[in-house]
Amino acid sequence: MGGIGMGKRALVALVLGAVAATADPAVAASPKAEVQAWRRTHEKEIVTDFSNLLSLPNVATNLADVDRNAAYISDLLAKRGFKVQLLRAAPGTPASVYAELKTPGAKRTVLYYAHYDGQPIGQKGWITSPFEPAMRTALPEAKPIDWKAATGPLDPDWRLYGRSAGDDKGSIQALISAFDALKASGRKPSVNIKLLYEGEEEQGSAHFAEIVRQNLDLLKTDLLVMGDGPMHQSGKQMINFGNRGIVSFDATVYGPLKPLHDGHYGSWAPSPTVMVADLVMSLRDEDGRILIPGFYDDVTPVSEATKAALAALPPVEPDLKKAMGLGRNVGGPRLADGYLKPTLNIRAINAGDSGPQAANAIATEGRVSVDFRLAPGETPARVKEMTEAYLVQKGWFIVRGTPDTAARLAHPKVIRLDWDEGGSIATMTPIDLPASKAVAASIGRTVGYEPLKMPIVGASSGMADIVNQLKAPMVGVSIANYDDNQHAQNENLRIGNLWDGIEVYAGLLADLNW
Amino acid sequence: MGGIGMGKRALVALVLGAVAATADPAVAASPKAEVQAWRRTHEKEIVTDFSNLLSLPNVATNLADVDRNAAYISDLLAKRGFKVQLLRAAPGTPASVYAELKTPGAKRTVLYYAHYDGQPIGQKGWITSPFEPAMRTALPEAKPIDWKAATGPLDPDWRLYGRSAGDDKGSIQALISAFDALKASGRKPSVNIKLLYEGEEEQGSAHFAEIVRQNLDLLKTDLLVMGDGPMHQSGKQMINFGNRGIVSFDATVYGPLKPLHDGHYGSWAPSPTVMVADLVMSLRDEDGRILIPGFYDDVTPVSEATKAALAALPPVEPDLKKAMGLGRNVGGPRLADGYLKPTLNIRAINAGDSGPQAANAIATEGRVSVDFRLAPGETPARVKEMTEAYLVQKGWFIVRGTPDTAARLAHPKVIRLDWDEGGSIATMTPIDLPASKAVAASIGRTVGYEPLKMPIVGASSGMADIVNQLKAPMVGVSIANYDDNQHAQNENLRIGNLWDGIEVYAGLLADLNW
Repeated sequence: MGGIGMGKRALVALVLGAVAATADPAVAASPKAEVQAWRRTHEKEIVTDFSNLLSLPNVATNLADVDRNAAYISDLLAKRGFKVQLLRAAPGTPASVYAELKTPGAKRTVLYYAHYDGQPIGQKGWITSPFEPAMRTALPEAKPIDWKAATGPLDPDWRLYGRSAGDDKGSIQALISAFDALKASGRKPSVNIKLLYEGEEEQGSAHFAEIVRQNLDLLKTDLLVMGDGPMHQSGKQMINFGNRGIVSFDATVYGPLKPLHDGHYGSWAPSPTVMVADLVMSLRDEDGRILIPGFYDDVTPVSEATKAALAALPPVEPDLKKAMGLGRNVGGPRLADGYLKPTLNIRAINAGDSGPQAANAIATEGRVSVDFRLAPGETPARVKEMTEAYLVQKGWFIVRGTPDTAARLAHPKVIRLDWDEGGSIATMTPIDLPASKAVAASIGRTVGYEPLKMPIVGASSGMADIVNQLKAPMVGVSIANYDDNQHAQNENLRIGNLWDGIEVYAGLLADLNW
Repeated sequence: MGGIGMGKRALVALVLGAVAATADPAVAASPKAEVQAWRRTHEKEIVTDFSNLLSLPNVATNLADVDRNAAYISDLLAKRGFKVQLLRAAPGTPASVYAELKTPGAKRTVLYYAHYDGQPIGQKGWITSPFEPAMRTALPEAKPIDWKAATGPLDPDWRLYGRSAGDDKGSIQALISAFDALKASGRKPSVNIKLLYEGEEEQGSAHFAEIVRQNLDLLKTDLLVMGDGPMHQSGKQMINFGNRGIVSFDATVYGPLKPLHDGHYGSWAPSPTVMVADLVMSLRDEDGRILIPGFYDDVTPVSEATKAALAALPPVEPDLKKAMGLGRNVGGPRLADGYLKPTLNIRAINAGDSGPQAANAIATEGRVSVDFRLAPGETPARVKEMTEAYLVQKGWFIVRGTPDTAARLAHPKVIRLDWDEGGSIATMTPIDLPASKAVAASIGRTVGYEPLKMPIVGASSGMADIVNQLKAPMVGVSIANYDDNQHAQNENLRIGNLWDGIEVYAGLLADLNW
């Protein structure tokens, strides 16, 4: 990826900041040099291990698949001296892999979270099969490459393609390799280590909060380190201090019971193609403003410290537009500024057939798939309530299943709402807590500059409930390249990001101290 | 179908009108009684012939398929004494079947039009294969029935299901059976008969105008009778005097070059799901009003005679709503009132995956499929011009192919427009021409009441160009039940409609006179 959009002066300032951080004599030296040396002699073993991990199908709608992942990861950790157990909310639900490694004399405990399950793989356009990991050269060429036959170091700009490469098995692999590197160099962790690898994050974490509730003592920690999500677009190491919440629903609207010829009936019969468009444009405008009355009222005002942290982020927007072929953006000019507000995403809008299936017919139904990303202060229950009240005000009659003909006749506009179970609130850990500062300092020692600090990331995670239950601060330390195609076809991890991730995690394991 | 929405008083008035029409001594008696008697003894032969005709695949994107239909229909007509030839605009394009039968001493020539090709069959939900015609009992049960094993007369409420049953092979079958019935009863046509059966109407009639242009002398006629389209929803026999025009396009809009996680990027990256919704709602409102400035300026004002004809149509709307499960309508309360205005139909709107394929990703593209039904006075060229000017005014940069990254970066909103070739203007024959009145009188003699007169139907046909080229009036005499699912899955013809159609066409053939 090589980093984008950071001027030389800013970089110098950050490096000076890092030098200041390493001046504290109470802190152990970074293990970076030994870790790097070990990695250089083990590159192919690491990629082989990672490839094996990625080759296990892990869509959590298939319990047997995720159970195979859980068993495999448990085995990897047990071999490295961890005390491992599988935690399930109930039989027949995906397990979280829990692993523990005590450090004699340590006063602090740090719990590392990631998830080992992956997004569904049905997207069109996978170049290679999602569970047959394949290496490709740097973008934009992305040519297939036989990395096993390569001589010398692997090119850090190569990428390994496969579901969960970036989201999140890359994080799991980096932490395991970090342990191997530390062990090889004789370094011990500075704190007690707990690992919690979830198995159904991409299916909405329906049982994860319950798993935590049942194991509050086991999971007790002074700090949560969250490995989910991509790095900053600049390629600089970033720490984030929370996630937005989420609540989502699918809507179905209804036209005639049978398709009608649109020449004969188009001027008279309501068309689901237009109804879905009207529904979308009544919920938000093209620029992203949510039109549900009072929707922004619950949002926690942004603090000055948070504003300052956001303002300090390097400008990535021009390069991001270029990389994504975007001639404009919506909302405000700064990407991260949007993270402290809610976003209403239209994931899908579909009615009628296009292309070869097209016919001059009025469709019988239309569908819209919506997610709300919630800012701090909002709750899924309140958003659901406000959304439904607004739809009713807009003339919709809400049903929970397929409406019968009587219901369709009795109400001008019928909408079926299927809310996803679960949902989560946002979470934000203060940037200036001692634990927060210790993480930033450790990473600074490893990477040689003050890491970027993101007050909150745009994506959601099941961690909000967990943070609340464990009453522990949480920081996110992501290692995946921002352009890892997570949630989409051709998900990948840049090899250089795996190398850097091993160093960063090894640093945290070895010298975290507060 | 049984007819819907006609009060007893209206019916009496119509019957009285029909009595007055039959009082003219210069007109030959209707052949109805003999035709009905013949049909009663030949029901299974007629349905067998019809079923054979429907079993020939006829989607005009497959030339070999439509050529087989043309050959088959030619053979049917040649056996009945017609002079038949295939007319093609150019080799490799679908043929129109032309057939001629001179009537010694006749002063008038009437050309009957229908099309033998059918809509694409890709729609989901066909109960039986579109080219394996199958009989089912009356709605709503629609149970499979072995009509070949039935004893006694076939139930007129049964329906034969298959592509083109209603649109338009039913019309072709009715006319051929009408000839057979007249021949059996010794009746000769009252005029010279020409038949023209088109082979690519459902693909936009790209070559039909050229076929006519090349054969103006051959096709010379005093009247065009058009057999396409469904009957009035009341089940009463209707004559129509024209069709709306049409012009259509597919639009593609563009988001990021690659799918983006909607949590991280949803507040900043433009989303094609919203862009398509915004596009639709900028073109028309939910109630059907077209928002393109000046769009209604070219529409020919509706004459008082036309208004009176529209007002005289029986109210079908309440029963239509009931049948279609509609709790409301858009536009004005009367269905046919909309036919004298343009309609903008959104045939399809699609962006992002719903259901099992859904992912929290911002889609890369969105598509909208649009057709305009044109009122008299409008032209496809002018509509295209106004639409594009409006899109430009709305900030869209129009491209004709897939835009490259440079184009996407250079313009905030890029839209690819693919206009369908062809398109047609509307056509309207005056209701009070002698030929128009003669058709109404003939049908009145057959059905026993004054037929409904529809100044124009909502659907389009390739006939506008033809009417202009042949400089002949045109009336539409449709026989298909209004709920024939034309253009959709499970297209069908009600058997009673086929019986009535045979009588109506036999009447026109035998006693049309002006």
